[in-house]
Amino acid sequence: MPLSLLSSPLDLSAGSMSRQQQLLARFKRAILGGQLPPGSRLPSTRSLCEQLQVARNTVLAVYEQLTAEGYAEADRQGTRVATLLAMPAGIRAEPSVARQDRQRPSRRVSAIKSTRDAGDRALPLTPGMPALNRFALNAWLRAQERALKRAGPMALAYGEALGEPALREAIAQYLRVARGVRCEAGQVVVTEGAQGALSLCVRLFANPGERAWVEDPGYGGVLAAFHSGDMKIRSMPVDDEGILIADRDWRWPPRLIHVTPSHQYPTGAVLSLARRLALIARAREHGCWIIEDDYDSDFCHHGHPIPAMQGLVPEAPVLYVGTFSKTLFPGLRIGFLILPASVGEDTWRALAEMLRGGHRLEQLALAEFMAGGQFARHLGRMKRLYRERQQALRAALQTHLPGLDISGGASGLHLTLRLPPGCADTAVSAAARAAGMNVGALSSFSAGPPQARHNGLVIGYGNTSEEQYDALIRCLAGIVRRTLRHQIRAWQADAGAA
Amino acid sequence: MPLSLLSSPLDLSAGSMSRQQQLLARFKRAILGGQLPPGSRLPSTRSLCEQLQVARNTVLAVYEQLTAEGYAEADRQGTRVATLLAMPAGIRAEPSVARQDRQRPSRRVSAIKSTRDAGDRALPLTPGMPALNRFALNAWLRAQERALKRAGPMALAYGEALGEPALREAIAQYLRVARGVRCEAGQVVVTEGAQGALSLCVRLFANPGERAWVEDPGYGGVLAAFHSGDMKIRSMPVDDEGILIADRDWRWPPRLIHVTPSHQYPTGAVLSLARRLALIARAREHGCWIIEDDYDSDFCHHGHPIPAMQGLVPEAPVLYVGTFSKTLFPGLRIGFLILPASVGEDTWRALAEMLRGGHRLEQLALAEFMAGGQFARHLGRMKRLYRERQQALRAALQTHLPGLDISGGASGLHLTLRLPPGCADTAVSAAARAAGMNVGALSSFSAGPPQARHNGLVIGYGNTSEEQYDALIRCLAGIVRRTLRHQIRAWQADAGAA
Repeated sequence: MPLSLLSSPLDLSAGSMSRQQQLLARFKRAILGGQLPPGSRLPSTRSLCEQLQVARNTVLAVYEQLTAEGYAEADRQGTRVATLLAMPAGIRAEPSVARQDRQRPSRRVSAIKSTRDAGDRALPLTPGMPALNRFALNAWLRAQERALKRAGPMALAYGEALGEPALREAIAQYLRVARGVRCEAGQVVVTEGAQGALSLCVRLFANPGERAWVEDPGYGGVLAAFHSGDMKIRSMPVDDEGILIADRDWRWPPRLIHVTPSHQYPTGAVLSLARRLALIARAREHGCWIIEDDYDSDFCHHGHPIPAMQGLVPEAPVLYVGTFSKTLFPGLRIGFLILPASVGEDTWRALAEMLRGGHRLEQLALAEFMAGGQFARHLGRMKRLYRERQQALRAALQTHLPGLDISGGASGLHLTLRLPPGCADTAVSAAARAAGMNVGALSSFSAGPPQARHNGLVIGYGNTSEEQYDALIRCLAGIVRRTLRHQIRAWQADAGAA
Repeated sequence: MPLSLLSSPLDLSAGSMSRQQQLLARFKRAILGGQLPPGSRLPSTRSLCEQLQVARNTVLAVYEQLTAEGYAEADRQGTRVATLLAMPAGIRAEPSVARQDRQRPSRRVSAIKSTRDAGDRALPLTPGMPALNRFALNAWLRAQERALKRAGPMALAYGEALGEPALREAIAQYLRVARGVRCEAGQVVVTEGAQGALSLCVRLFANPGERAWVEDPGYGGVLAAFHSGDMKIRSMPVDDEGILIADRDWRWPPRLIHVTPSHQYPTGAVLSLARRLALIARAREHGCWIIEDDYDSDFCHHGHPIPAMQGLVPEAPVLYVGTFSKTLFPGLRIGFLILPASVGEDTWRALAEMLRGGHRLEQLALAEFMAGGQFARHLGRMKRLYRERQQALRAALQTHLPGLDISGGASGLHLTLRLPPGCADTAVSAAARAAGMNVGALSSFSAGPPQARHNGLVIGYGNTSEEQYDALIRCLAGIVRRTLRHQIRAWQADAGAA
């Protein structure tokens, strides 16, 4: 009998494991560690009770559990370690001190770089954050209760893989009217936010090793989605008319092209009609899919909204992606993917296997919210609010940082401010965070080499109220000036040293 | 000026598009269709008003919108079609009648086969469905409200990518005590149900073309997850001790092995201790990862639960997957993945890029529910309930279908009944559905050739109350007998014909 089993008394202090658990663990360790080899006899219950001062029932329960789990077996003379339990090589009861694991992560893990901003999203000026405290939360909770009452206990069951039919219908109807998307409810897939939709685009339409084009600067999340599908990624430049693709680029056409035509993320450029048409024609010619990420299109601030590319011409090779993260709230995590009507039966079958439905309460509540007109009312209220906030931000920028170029603002929740060369956006963004505001550095959205990167600030106005901008931007202007002075002094010192 | 633009009057009936929308659409069609080529002049607003009998403001608004969207441009003489808008080849304003799309789905789409059961999950005897009408829904909604009050509006924001810290802590604590899992909160990833966790295992640890082993019969959902990662799948047989792996199988070791050790899905076999240890040792030796899918382990019906493989020995190469779909409700769609402590920083970074958090209200409510003890109480109540229901099902099976082998039931929500050869489970299952009960055909869980497939019924007792079993199983027994008689007659006819 190994000493370790019986030598030390059991720990009786409160908070530790029960005596039964301790004894069970001791036996398992001794068996797995080889101190109690297969076929060896366990001590009689009586002797164990006496040595360890525990009740006989405790020992009996431990032996029973050891037998149930396959560590031991009963015979006529009592209990012994299971004879068939040959300990395979490589099994150790105690952790090794240092060990080289042969278990490796996938190759794509090393391809995926950090793009996420470190900023605290509760801070003012956070890009992409809607007005959380203006959300009609009570109306939302009531919609959830109504949906629950109507559906009964089956609302708790697995939902349909592609999403609740009522929600798919409501989304199709909204997109037809508000975004000019050509779709029926049957083309709608409810997804885990826009990110879930991007991930589905990759799984459904791209093979490992195929090319994908992204905007540069652009949305970092799409890189993780494309890398997850082992795609080769190429960054395409963005100018005032959106993504810029040269004729020679089409010599190696991609499988997928990710674009944000309504309000380029993060520059705010609107993709021009000529480029939209050319992109559709070329994509069709080369068998590519355009992923139209319409993440920020619902709040149009100037004139009428520009309809989605998806509906621009019939049968456009467009996978349309959207989300309720900005229109309702990000924590809801409901997005959608609109597949072309031409997509085949096998794709729908594969989708139904990949998805498992769920989040039915939220999906049913959202369907209620949309069908009952509360969604449209909320959008209307928020549009007015964001327009006012954008104006307040623009006014503050013109007052405190005059002369700097401002882009974006046709729709969405942020403006992009260009900084003069030498005023590194990353330095400004870090100092601004220390001062309590979360503005993004434009260069951090860029995959290109540092010198070619866009230099600027991405400033959100969604979740920051009107009266705050003057003080915040005054403070930001101070940071910009200090960063510039610091750089100029460094240049002067360099020049003096040379 | 193309005739189509002006020849037909606008539709003034209620419910149709507004005049402005109709006119806008007509112009866009004419421009995209080439009837109005680039540079051509649009009619003067005055003449258009007269011809179409619309207000001048309507026409002005249409021209403004055409200009805003890039279809037209203003010059001194009025408005003309944008001169730079060369229509690329391949753009058509009207859908073609028949067209070969070059846009193809990915190869994996054709690899993914339908495995999903067609049955109506609201019917009695549905496998894997918990007792929906016994869920403490009011307590749940109150937990959600409390969580919301405590967190304030930021509860609506993006959550942490890996899940709410309070929930990760609660899951780690539960798994340590209830399942013997060795983990800290930092190893927990909150996922979109078990399916989301499986998909992450593939993305994090497997490369395209690498091998994966699955149980046969087994959980169909894992096939879609493995195919999504372009893995080569091999089915391994299952017997009374769970997955059966021969020495020669290790000559081509896989990257991932999916097992359900606590309660094999769907046979209910418990993986023996000897096989658990051997599997861990071999996986370690060959650098494989074991995915321990502990989907059905929380309701142990005989004696003490058998702890998870993950905690059996230190540093086991196990990715532990679980879900709240059975313990709470499937529509919640919250699962978890426990990564080994040895997993490197790059894996965590990649995870943070792949995930976007979200569903915070539900995650915070669940954390409340667990920390407040309501989860444990609900589990206790459900365990008693399911034990009674399993006994009632067993009794009914023994009364009405005596002599047939029943497997499973050590834990979980279903029993597996073996059918005699010649009594095809698919026929019985289809007839049972027509009779209003949703039992699964065991052969449909199998990837093997039809003749080698397991023949039986997977019968759920989670969402079916005690008093129903006698009548349901009597009816099922009638179906089994009729199916057998039918087959015997067919055999006799064959023999007579021969």
